[in-house]
Amino acid sequence: MISKLIEQIKTKQAPVVVGLDPQLSFIPEQILNKYYEEKGYTLEAVADAVFEYNKGLVDATYDLIPAVKPQIAMYEQFGIPGLIAYKKTVDYCHEKGLVVIGDIKRGDIGSTSSAYAVGHIGSVKLGDQVIKPFDEDIVTVNPYLGTDGVKPFVDVCNQEDKGIFVLVKTSNPSSGEFQDRTVDGRPLYEIVAEKVVEWGNESMDGDYSNVGAVVGATYPEMGILLREIMPKAYILVPGYGAQGGSGKDLKGFFNKDGLGAIINSSRGIIAAYKNEKYSSFGAECYMDAARKATEDMLQDIRENVF
Amino acid sequence: MISKLIEQIKTKQAPVVVGLDPQLSFIPEQILNKYYEEKGYTLEAVADAVFEYNKGLVDATYDLIPAVKPQIAMYEQFGIPGLIAYKKTVDYCHEKGLVVIGDIKRGDIGSTSSAYAVGHIGSVKLGDQVIKPFDEDIVTVNPYLGTDGVKPFVDVCNQEDKGIFVLVKTSNPSSGEFQDRTVDGRPLYEIVAEKVVEWGNESMDGDYSNVGAVVGATYPEMGILLREIMPKAYILVPGYGAQGGSGKDLKGFFNKDGLGAIINSSRGIIAAYKNEKYSSFGAECYMDAARKATEDMLQDIRENVF
Repeated sequence: MISKLIEQIKTKQAPVVVGLDPQLSFIPEQILNKYYEEKGYTLEAVADAVFEYNKGLVDATYDLIPAVKPQIAMYEQFGIPGLIAYKKTVDYCHEKGLVVIGDIKRGDIGSTSSAYAVGHIGSVKLGDQVIKPFDEDIVTVNPYLGTDGVKPFVDVCNQEDKGIFVLVKTSNPSSGEFQDRTVDGRPLYEIVAEKVVEWGNESMDGDYSNVGAVVGATYPEMGILLREIMPKAYILVPGYGAQGGSGKDLKGFFNKDGLGAIINSSRGIIAAYKNEKYSSFGAECYMDAARKATEDMLQDIRENVF
Repeated sequence: MISKLIEQIKTKQAPVVVGLDPQLSFIPEQILNKYYEEKGYTLEAVADAVFEYNKGLVDATYDLIPAVKPQIAMYEQFGIPGLIAYKKTVDYCHEKGLVVIGDIKRGDIGSTSSAYAVGHIGSVKLGDQVIKPFDEDIVTVNPYLGTDGVKPFVDVCNQEDKGIFVLVKTSNPSSGEFQDRTVDGRPLYEIVAEKVVEWGNESMDGDYSNVGAVVGATYPEMGILLREIMPKAYILVPGYGAQGGSGKDLKGFFNKDGLGAIINSSRGIIAAYKNEKYSSFGAECYMDAARKATEDMLQDIRENVF
């Protein structure tokens, strides 16, 4: 799978991913009101609004980007109807040729991680039928339970040509509370990174592994070090833009081949119309604001990284 | 919420929880075949079978136990239909008066954890409507992202009188890979346990906190120590039975008041009919096997713990 993502990144000269994280406050009122009028104040109405909002964002940006990253929590917050909108979003992005990174951050004991892997990147065999329940291309995985919580995902990556990004150093302010604690003279995230290398060796796909890592843009100095520890792991970098990271912080996440990292922006793009810089587009043209913000992000990254 | 759980535990003299983790191989063939004939080899058929299987288990055990713990991965593996069966299971268990612990192990950056908290233990406000999407009573939370990934759950616990169990030391074989690493001369799980105390102080409900911890039955010596570090935290103890823990390992997880811990068994109860000891019940009477296994577990715990 990672080779498919790399091909798309090269074709579009865009090591970026748009985070489809539809918080209620991001969805323009004209879309919400349309569905409230039709279906009342229901989860079904919000879910329809979420999907229409996403569709606008995808239609406006798919030719510029290789991949999207829907954050499943933003759908799960709306219950079953929200998760139906998640699945429709995954399918629609596939129709548009995008690689879909499901930001699910799952991880559990072995048999349970197996179930998550089957549901999101694998298939269920029932009689003569093979069914792919969610069918993302890549998912994010939480490593707190250790190898037997991660390996079931790696096994499915190998069976189905899929990928995972394992949380190593997250972008949030308190990520250091546990991740930075010193173990044998080194921070815990380095120990996790070494395991990512070990797991990744079992799922190579060309020059890179299907097992990548998440390292926040907000910690660029750690990115440089982690880049060295995990030379074959693709790094998914959240925290660009709204969370504080910028283009000049990003060079260290990339290898000398110009590959090895993919930068995520969520609200900076999908809620660009709420940002003063893009406010002239207005809520009606939220998708055009998103396209302009994507173009600006691409320019920032191309100028600073290559 | 923890006081409600404690009341149920006292009334039923049962510090146990049944894990409703419907793996495909656990569901008796007569149930699966009924729905395959009706709906073909589809996720919808499996989801209906899952719910009927769960209903049998709940009907056979609800008078003996205070709580159930559905593992959401086992439903999520069957996509949207599976998650509908999860929600139906939560609702049915509430009808039967059970406390529902959603084993979801979510955890993310702040705004994303907020969305998970809203979806599972909180409510969405839409116009004049307040909707509780999944409406479990308590959920499990992964602490790898630190305080800002856990606090949104604690806030919702306080707003809605709900609870969480934070992963401290999990029951699986490789849990030690990161959780046992030495930080400032102590294992990481102790550092996490101290944070559980800190978070828990903000959500007291009687003698105990709404913020509890997960500590595996497979590590009883660590249970004794963690019990001391977190005197006001309820400990959810997985790994009893099939994963290797037994009654005599459990005393250390409890406080001197006989409270403070709740022991989970999943496959040991729900798939009891597949165990030689209970095989005389047969697949047709899987629910009676489950009841007998629950009674035996209760006896084991009452004898060894009190």
